[in-house]
Amino acid sequence: LGEFGTVTIVGVGLIGGSIGLALRARALASRVVGLGRDRERLARAQARGAVDDFSTDYEVALAGSSIVVVCTPVDCIAEDVARAARIVGPETLITDAGSTKQGIIERVVEDPESRVRYVGAHPIAGSERSGVDAARVDLFDGSVCVLTPVRSTEHRRTELAHAFWESLGCQVVSMTPMAHDEALAQMSHLPHVVAATLARSAPVASLAFGGGAFRDMTRVAAADPALWVSILLENRNAVLQSLDRFRLSLDEFRDLLHQADSERLAKWWRVANEQRGRFEQKIKPGRDLPPGSSFASNG
Amino acid sequence: LGEFGTVTIVGVGLIGGSIGLALRARALASRVVGLGRDRERLARAQARGAVDDFSTDYEVALAGSSIVVVCTPVDCIAEDVARAARIVGPETLITDAGSTKQGIIERVVEDPESRVRYVGAHPIAGSERSGVDAARVDLFDGSVCVLTPVRSTEHRRTELAHAFWESLGCQVVSMTPMAHDEALAQMSHLPHVVAATLARSAPVASLAFGGGAFRDMTRVAAADPALWVSILLENRNAVLQSLDRFRLSLDEFRDLLHQADSERLAKWWRVANEQRGRFEQKIKPGRDLPPGSSFASNG
Repeated sequence: LGEFGTVTIVGVGLIGGSIGLALRARALASRVVGLGRDRERLARAQARGAVDDFSTDYEVALAGSSIVVVCTPVDCIAEDVARAARIVGPETLITDAGSTKQGIIERVVEDPESRVRYVGAHPIAGSERSGVDAARVDLFDGSVCVLTPVRSTEHRRTELAHAFWESLGCQVVSMTPMAHDEALAQMSHLPHVVAATLARSAPVASLAFGGGAFRDMTRVAAADPALWVSILLENRNAVLQSLDRFRLSLDEFRDLLHQADSERLAKWWRVANEQRGRFEQKIKPGRDLPPGSSFASNG
Repeated sequence: LGEFGTVTIVGVGLIGGSIGLALRARALASRVVGLGRDRERLARAQARGAVDDFSTDYEVALAGSSIVVVCTPVDCIAEDVARAARIVGPETLITDAGSTKQGIIERVVEDPESRVRYVGAHPIAGSERSGVDAARVDLFDGSVCVLTPVRSTEHRRTELAHAFWESLGCQVVSMTPMAHDEALAQMSHLPHVVAATLARSAPVASLAFGGGAFRDMTRVAAADPALWVSILLENRNAVLQSLDRFRLSLDEFRDLLHQADSERLAKWWRVANEQRGRFEQKIKPGRDLPPGSSFASNG
């Protein structure tokens, strides 16, 4: 009980709040402290049971912290890691929940205080909603959390990060930051862009005729613009690549439809069926993770 | 009770089965008869409670029928309407549940026996699953059903079709076949194509990193290839137009991302937020239907 000691969560929104709820429900920390700029939001996080205490002051919120989890937008993470690294002791683990990794890590490794303490992480879970009111105690149950240790990362710190994210309900896997960003561009960032494009390209007069497909496919178009613009800019190259691959595949379909080639259209659709079937297999509990990724040993 | 007399459902799969379940649960028909080619499937529909009786013989299944609902694939509907029209009396209403309308109606109006009896309909409800096992008694609750009467359609027959679909839980609206097909290309057919493209364009090795967005956005990629190829070919021109509009919108986004124009990207995303918000308003019960469509009076 309380194995992780004092855990400070920087940014107690959907992700930070869900981490706090899970830590407290599972009694994994002796104390969960919220750190942020907005006292009112922090008080709401405390009222929801996501944190024991909170402060807007880095020194106060980080006092005695064994683990710091930075859950701020991706364009703030490296800076927030550096600020925390200046305050916490040399044994403290700093991890994050950013949806992109390469850009953040490039900035983190330039700072000696940051790089010895930091293990990049991305728990793949979320919602189109944001803020602590959308936080859920079970948000990470059965999700994959990618760790992206690099050469400067201490092995024992990676092991602690592994144990931490696993304790929250994640299946933990290690990858390079670049492999992470490419996979996420394809599997999350591109789908978000496509959802927004579908929503945008529908004439207002047609909206009433949307059924379940349109509803499900535009759900994440409701996501926060500032958060998503940060993610897309941070992962710009990989997103552009995924977008181009998607457009090629769409053009291939367009040609088949234009030619009214029913046989090849059916074959094209069957491949989509198969891929969807594979995906459903992958997301079952105990999912089979790809050979390019390795499970960090949990020492 | 039993106000619609004997109703025959041609093709008792997801849609036909759901119609049968709703008719029987609401005691709207004196008798519900299933008609199809496969006795085993028809027997399963009866076991599920979707039909009272069934037959593979048109003459038998259509004897005494007041309403015939053709729920076969879109490329079979006009022919099935014509076959039924030769058997049933002059007062019988023949309606359908096809996802496309213009091509079907062009074929129907060429046949005098068909055109006097037929009122085109499309209840906008469904699932990526097919077959009677996926049928649901509440499939049409709160859905929109589009009627597409044309010049040759008898007004009283349109009124009966309106009453029939409304009694199943649909909000009924009338449109021209072309307006229907354009709206559905944008709101249903394009999203299905995009879902299949997203599923296809993801490298197998990345599938394990898909979260909720990818899951929801590829759900309908599991839909039946034969059914969907028929729909896409039937509505080819409108789908190609929607696809081109979608690609333009996607290219606009690509340029903004390429230029890393954070301000305009945020604006772009906010429009998507707004459209999704509008859609959520539209799909609330008592939805506000577009001015281009009119409510058929329910006499």
